[in-house]
Amino acid sequence: MQLTQALHRNAQQMPSDIATSCEGRVRTWTESRGRVAGLAGGLLAHGVGTGDRVAIASLNSDHYHEMLLATWWAGALVNPVNIRWSPAEISYSLVDSSTRVLFVDDAFAAALPAIREGAPQLKTVIHAGAGVTPDGAVPLEDLVASTPVDDARRGGADIAGVFYTGGTTGFPKGVMLSHQAMLVSALGSAAAGAFVPGATLLHAAPMFHLADLAAWTGTNMLGGSHVMVPAFNPAGVLAAIEEHSVSDALLVPTMLQMLVDAPGFADADLSSLRRILYGASPIAASLLERIQSALPTVRLTQAYGMTELAPIASVLTSEDHQVERLRRSAGRAAPHAEVIVADPEGNEVERGVVGEVLVRGGHVMDGYWGKPEETADALRGGWMHTGDGAYMDDAGYIFIVDRLKDMIVSGGENVYSAEVENALSSHPAVAACAVIGVPDPEWGERVHAVVVLRPGQTVTVEGLRDHAKALIATYKAPRSMETVDALPLSGAGKVLKRELRAAHWGDTDRNVG
Amino acid sequence: MQLTQALHRNAQQMPSDIATSCEGRVRTWTESRGRVAGLAGGLLAHGVGTGDRVAIASLNSDHYHEMLLATWWAGALVNPVNIRWSPAEISYSLVDSSTRVLFVDDAFAAALPAIREGAPQLKTVIHAGAGVTPDGAVPLEDLVASTPVDDARRGGADIAGVFYTGGTTGFPKGVMLSHQAMLVSALGSAAAGAFVPGATLLHAAPMFHLADLAAWTGTNMLGGSHVMVPAFNPAGVLAAIEEHSVSDALLVPTMLQMLVDAPGFADADLSSLRRILYGASPIAASLLERIQSALPTVRLTQAYGMTELAPIASVLTSEDHQVERLRRSAGRAAPHAEVIVADPEGNEVERGVVGEVLVRGGHVMDGYWGKPEETADALRGGWMHTGDGAYMDDAGYIFIVDRLKDMIVSGGENVYSAEVENALSSHPAVAACAVIGVPDPEWGERVHAVVVLRPGQTVTVEGLRDHAKALIATYKAPRSMETVDALPLSGAGKVLKRELRAAHWGDTDRNVG
Repeated sequence: MQLTQALHRNAQQMPSDIATSCEGRVRTWTESRGRVAGLAGGLLAHGVGTGDRVAIASLNSDHYHEMLLATWWAGALVNPVNIRWSPAEISYSLVDSSTRVLFVDDAFAAALPAIREGAPQLKTVIHAGAGVTPDGAVPLEDLVASTPVDDARRGGADIAGVFYTGGTTGFPKGVMLSHQAMLVSALGSAAAGAFVPGATLLHAAPMFHLADLAAWTGTNMLGGSHVMVPAFNPAGVLAAIEEHSVSDALLVPTMLQMLVDAPGFADADLSSLRRILYGASPIAASLLERIQSALPTVRLTQAYGMTELAPIASVLTSEDHQVERLRRSAGRAAPHAEVIVADPEGNEVERGVVGEVLVRGGHVMDGYWGKPEETADALRGGWMHTGDGAYMDDAGYIFIVDRLKDMIVSGGENVYSAEVENALSSHPAVAACAVIGVPDPEWGERVHAVVVLRPGQTVTVEGLRDHAKALIATYKAPRSMETVDALPLSGAGKVLKRELRAAHWGDTDRNVG
Repeated sequence: MQLTQALHRNAQQMPSDIATSCEGRVRTWTESRGRVAGLAGGLLAHGVGTGDRVAIASLNSDHYHEMLLATWWAGALVNPVNIRWSPAEISYSLVDSSTRVLFVDDAFAAALPAIREGAPQLKTVIHAGAGVTPDGAVPLEDLVASTPVDDARRGGADIAGVFYTGGTTGFPKGVMLSHQAMLVSALGSAAAGAFVPGATLLHAAPMFHLADLAAWTGTNMLGGSHVMVPAFNPAGVLAAIEEHSVSDALLVPTMLQMLVDAPGFADADLSSLRRILYGASPIAASLLERIQSALPTVRLTQAYGMTELAPIASVLTSEDHQVERLRRSAGRAAPHAEVIVADPEGNEVERGVVGEVLVRGGHVMDGYWGKPEETADALRGGWMHTGDGAYMDDAGYIFIVDRLKDMIVSGGENVYSAEVENALSSHPAVAACAVIGVPDPEWGERVHAVVVLRPGQTVTVEGLRDHAKALIATYKAPRSMETVDALPLSGAGKVLKRELRAAHWGDTDRNVG
């Protein structure tokens, strides 16, 4: 059970079909296998050993596909770098995981001196790009031209990669995922309908992140084709869908909103699009309606999970999307996963009661790289503790209310930001919003809204408050607000509430246990 | 990743839905979980320890479902007994695997004294049936009424069971399958379309066999409902489909043939039936046509595999069934599996060339119980050696030509029985047939047909031979024949060619290496 297995199988079953399309480069599965076997040979020639870490600092491209597979083919582990990170953060992850080999593309070539300075153990840098190869780096194509080697056939319980995470919760931790964890998540999610055979999958969300990697893995497993654009932008995505007859896309709701708001959306030929998989947050009713009316043949599927779950725990199917009440939920435990909502002692709570989401199954991480205590804490009792607050209904649907750390305690009452944000997002002036707790002498914490306005619109805190009070309890309505041009987002498209809170709580985030 | 995980999940997501229906007993998933937790408590109270083997000698029933799950819930391993076996063979498997606890139903109660005599280590016998509890046995319901215990949560790489196999190839060997092997096969096959959510699955094929257990596991994983009939008989199956609105069934082609030939077939209301999964052999064109015209909404899926593969390696999808050429194939490697056709040295052969089917993936067995040499031989080079001869086409479709041991060498030419049987089965007088090699002074081996005639029909060897020669090369046409009332079948519905050959080769089967 290896992540390279799909490459063997697709080269066997669809040798002349397209594996990857990117910037005019088109590779069949036979070519893809040949390039991966050569690139792996090049990695071995550069001293990559079994179990070594190989980092990838790159925007999306067909090379990303090859770099991942070649690293596994050579028997090594991937360390895909968060593309939002500063050179110092990248160096931190390279040092923490003793990574000595790094792929960079043109976008990261300029940062190389700074990365090297912070990560002196770095030995080999491989440059994948059309630009000038940086000093001391070797061109990717030189390695691809190496003598091909046999697949090292690492797999099963062997660690496939160290995936740094924690942008929304503090210092990055390297999540160790085994080959089987990633494959079990992909197979189980496919069984739940998230992935289908024969897809042409668009990679617009960043490939370093497990959300997109999950869709990549699932499409490899079921046999399909990949289309990469370097990064998300609405016009590029619309053009890629038209040019490559894209059938499937993984997008977070923020991206979906930008897409339907884009000037070219109405005129684009998106008739090839069949499925959109999204995650990171529920989809707003207004956005869902626009998508369903503009793209009536598109089936929406939501997946909920996290890097530590390789990454999918639950799926809200396209059938579930037909039920209005369920659209606010994160779906139900997928066939490979078990999910409960538990109290702080790990005991399952009654249905409808908010607790922490705990998950178990063959897809759970092995632990955090070099962090046995954090690992033991996260996996205590045999369950992955997600840190997400949620309740479950009688049919097992999971309704996420908040990150436990983002939960607001105001006047002794728990306020879940998701519920408030949902209420505010239906205000006609609100394009996007995030709700946080800020210090307040009277209430302890005060419900505070951070709002992105629609063009030409304005709103007052009284207006927001009145709108909210018509939908939710008074104590949940915001007592203060600020407007911003855009919400700070993580590489995965999640709102970085830590950053929003920092201005109110000072340099040290509030102590949330 | 545990085989009990689906029980937790289904009790969570569909607590009041039907888990099992059998002989008027209907249990919801909540009830099923409660009975399993009680039965597991009873097993622990009777001294079953972690990793112990618990055998099940029973026809199909809802209790089979409970006995399997309770054994795992208690942390033990199942040893499902082949229902075709004599008491001596059952005892052999109990002794070989040091099994000390045995479930028996009414059908096996009478054999208990003989089984005990051959397996003196047997301590506890649990009787699941409406008949009189045999001397020294305890009633199942007494154990179910025990104090429920928590799930032992064995899973992942832990062995889930010892599945004795080898009815067609010699002395039985206990195949050790892990929890993850069975779950990976189920998830990958579901991803390939073999199992779907919400099925009402009929168990008419024997539940001891991995073919039916695979469908049971897949339906558990995706959430569904089980209907059990004690054993296959056409009238019982037709009645069960009507009564329970069965949507899915696992049947071998022999059973399908008997079903469409049954007097009540034309009048039965089979409108609920949506999918038939079959295995063991390709489906005859004439049978397929009858099914498709009588049951136009039924989608046929073929799965190929063996117990050692937990059990599915490849799937012929319902879409594939629309292509006539592909109907003779065993489909393509499923998303969880890798399949190649190799020469005796293990090197992949060219497409179209016959070799042995080799399989790898997370679903392959751990080995044969207590047989390290046979294990090493079967798994040499990291591949499961199936013993099946096949060729592969350019799109990865696998065409099984014969068991390697069943291959006939006549006048220096290889003759594959599947091809000859396929030719003969289109003869109007032939209801079923099997082709074997028998000793011949001139040809070394002679192609010999064993034929079951259609009612009122006769055929001569010349007639058969002429029919065959119109379809296949002359050297492949049978030179002798015999007629029988029925072909000897294994518990899984495969023709026992060893038995057919025995009459011609004497007590010792021909040496086939």
